[in-house]
Amino acid sequence: MIVVETIEELQQLINKKAGKTVGFVPTMGFLHEGHLSLVKHAIEQNDIVMMSIFVNPAQFGPGEDFESYPRDLDRDITLAEEAGVDFVFIPSVQEMYPFDGGIRILPGPQADELCGASRPGHFDGVLKVVLKLFNIVDPDRSYFGMKDAQQLAIIETFVRDFNLRTKIVRVPIVREDDGLAKSSRNVNLTPEERNQAPIIQQALIKGAELYSNGLKPVQIEKEVANFITGGSVGEIDYVKLLSYPSLQPITSETNEVILAVAVKFSKTRLIDNIIM
Amino acid sequence: MIVVETIEELQQLINKKAGKTVGFVPTMGFLHEGHLSLVKHAIEQNDIVMMSIFVNPAQFGPGEDFESYPRDLDRDITLAEEAGVDFVFIPSVQEMYPFDGGIRILPGPQADELCGASRPGHFDGVLKVVLKLFNIVDPDRSYFGMKDAQQLAIIETFVRDFNLRTKIVRVPIVREDDGLAKSSRNVNLTPEERNQAPIIQQALIKGAELYSNGLKPVQIEKEVANFITGGSVGEIDYVKLLSYPSLQPITSETNEVILAVAVKFSKTRLIDNIIM
Repeated sequence: MIVVETIEELQQLINKKAGKTVGFVPTMGFLHEGHLSLVKHAIEQNDIVMMSIFVNPAQFGPGEDFESYPRDLDRDITLAEEAGVDFVFIPSVQEMYPFDGGIRILPGPQADELCGASRPGHFDGVLKVVLKLFNIVDPDRSYFGMKDAQQLAIIETFVRDFNLRTKIVRVPIVREDDGLAKSSRNVNLTPEERNQAPIIQQALIKGAELYSNGLKPVQIEKEVANFITGGSVGEIDYVKLLSYPSLQPITSETNEVILAVAVKFSKTRLIDNIIM
Repeated sequence: MIVVETIEELQQLINKKAGKTVGFVPTMGFLHEGHLSLVKHAIEQNDIVMMSIFVNPAQFGPGEDFESYPRDLDRDITLAEEAGVDFVFIPSVQEMYPFDGGIRILPGPQADELCGASRPGHFDGVLKVVLKLFNIVDPDRSYFGMKDAQQLAIIETFVRDFNLRTKIVRVPIVREDDGLAKSSRNVNLTPEERNQAPIIQQALIKGAELYSNGLKPVQIEKEVANFITGGSVGEIDYVKLLSYPSLQPITSETNEVILAVAVKFSKTRLIDNIIM
């Protein structure tokens, strides 16, 4: 595996691989089995697999956890190599953002709900880094996990509406044995919180049952929230049942729906979802 | 020359030309010698030259001249072929904008002055179509005229800050024998206005002299405006002396400056500039 820190070096390496397909796995590092599942899918479908590791300051707001976001580059490099990644791109903030002419990419109504509602500007930063990385890497396929379902929906819309030259591949959520969705942030849970956190998925499964029983969205959201707060110290950021990927209220024309939650523990905000 | 109307067909054609460099000349049609100068530069530097002709509704505001913008596709196709264009891409509005997920690209402070001040949203629409076309065509080099100096500056910033995979080539303004900058909109001038319009360049040359004589920007702007209104029926939209390409007030660190004007005639708004 080749570790690359500059855009120039990366592009020279990619140019040498002309004619081969490139699968791209963008990450913020502190890899877990969710990321490695993205790599596994990328290896199956492409000649070359490129991973990026970059904790993107542009997508963290003031007071969010940019500083405390977990990092362990040595471990990440070992895990990426073992997983079969060919190139890992680890740029500095200066390498990624040497200039700022003030151009911004603003998401549409898909960003108004869920994490977008409580993290203003978050998806501007996501779209910025995603466009930059896609342009730098020029991947045939890019792999995103379904855990960040809103991010995935917005990126799919960006690719579709702006003709970006990569195919977006959705990869299912990977979970711990007790059902907690894998997340780099899970290490910031206290032992008690970690014990309670699987209630999030249990609540989603209960919500899915209520949905198939025909309960109204507002009632389902209430039941799911009560289930979580009744069995944990977590505070509800949101529980929402929406159409997917438009992330708008459900209508008679909705095909897929998402039940999505964000729960705040003492130092950690966790998200999870189920798509029906 | 091959005329292409769909993105799919265009990309199939480009894929067949692997290994060859592509020079791209995006236009809104009604071609004049300014456009053909872009083509000439593109032919010199690339294996293949692609032109697009698309009057982009996203960059016209309400009450602007989208409907009356001059169009003559048959003539454009003949001129492009004679100039040596290999592919001309003429998409419909539906082909370019089949979806709208509401994602917008907002320019930074470079859009606050000049045409950006009087055309709110104009450069959002320019950045939208430019990103789409760059993704569709994937050109090695893209050619823009210096007449739209603000557009050029903003696109250069976009390419730099977002790592777009094309090199931007600046091409000098082409003028009529009497000095009027070539523009598709010149045909909308009345005979009297057409007679008077060369005063715009004369005023810019006078302004450049005043600048080299050390006159202050605000005085130069006033003199240039008076010169134009004194010798024509044109109304001043703006006369501005700014740093280039940042389009900010001139400081002791400014290297290049632009003297830029926009003049409104009865049915036609003309722009011109000089860079010093």
